[in-house]
Amino acid sequence: MNFQIEFTRAPIVAPAREVSKEIGAQVDFWGIVREREQGRAIAGLCYEAHEPMARAMLAKILNELSALHDCDEVYFIHRLDFVAVGEASVLVRARARHRQAALRLTEELLNRLKADVPIWKQHVAPR
Amino acid sequence: MNFQIEFTRAPIVAPAREVSKEIGAQVDFWGIVREREQGRAIAGLCYEAHEPMARAMLAKILNELSALHDCDEVYFIHRLDFVAVGEASVLVRARARHRQAALRLTEELLNRLKADVPIWKQHVAPR
Repeated sequence: MNFQIEFTRAPIVAPAREVSKEIGAQVDFWGIVREREQGRAIAGLCYEAHEPMARAMLAKILNELSALHDCDEVYFIHRLDFVAVGEASVLVRARARHRQAALRLTEELLNRLKADVPIWKQHVAPR
Repeated sequence: MNFQIEFTRAPIVAPAREVSKEIGAQVDFWGIVREREQGRAIAGLCYEAHEPMARAMLAKILNELSALHDCDEVYFIHRLDFVAVGEASVLVRARARHRQAALRLTEELLNRLKADVPIWKQHVAPR
């Protein structure tokens, strides 16, 4: 499985869908900042990461998941610094021959992201 | 839950991502024609639907799934007639407050689509 991991401080833009004759399913998952966190209104979230550790952990997780779910390609991009309500903080793209592998890998990657990857968020209050 | 069901004879283009303060997760699922079906090389697939029945069945399925998975919006578009290898035959977009609802609804909708919706495909052999 090929994968690519990126961090960016600019708005996330989906790459064009590459044409492949072997890919039957592509999942694009967008994680978006909502206007309330734990009941409080926010202006956005500020994300920080330990980038080398986060990359290493994501690579480890993706290697583990690739043994469980037969995906061909995964693209992961996470935004850092301030992300306003309504904007995306993360995009995961999983491409596979069959839909179940792409959907399951995406779900498990997101669960592991929250649990194990050193990326932190802080609420930014509205003015 | 709001939903929209479309059939098209033109290539599928993803609508722009609408900004909402309540949506925390968006799943875009692309189903793409692969170059082999049951081991045989194909040029593409030709899709036919009984459109009124397919719409009614999809609406019924979406109403059932909305009771199980707390999604806000679902957009479903399926292509008809010839779809070449590498092109998308279907796009499902599910938007929800939380990722699990969007992922699960997408997966179940795709399972039900294959099982219950009157859309048929025929292999088109290469020249």
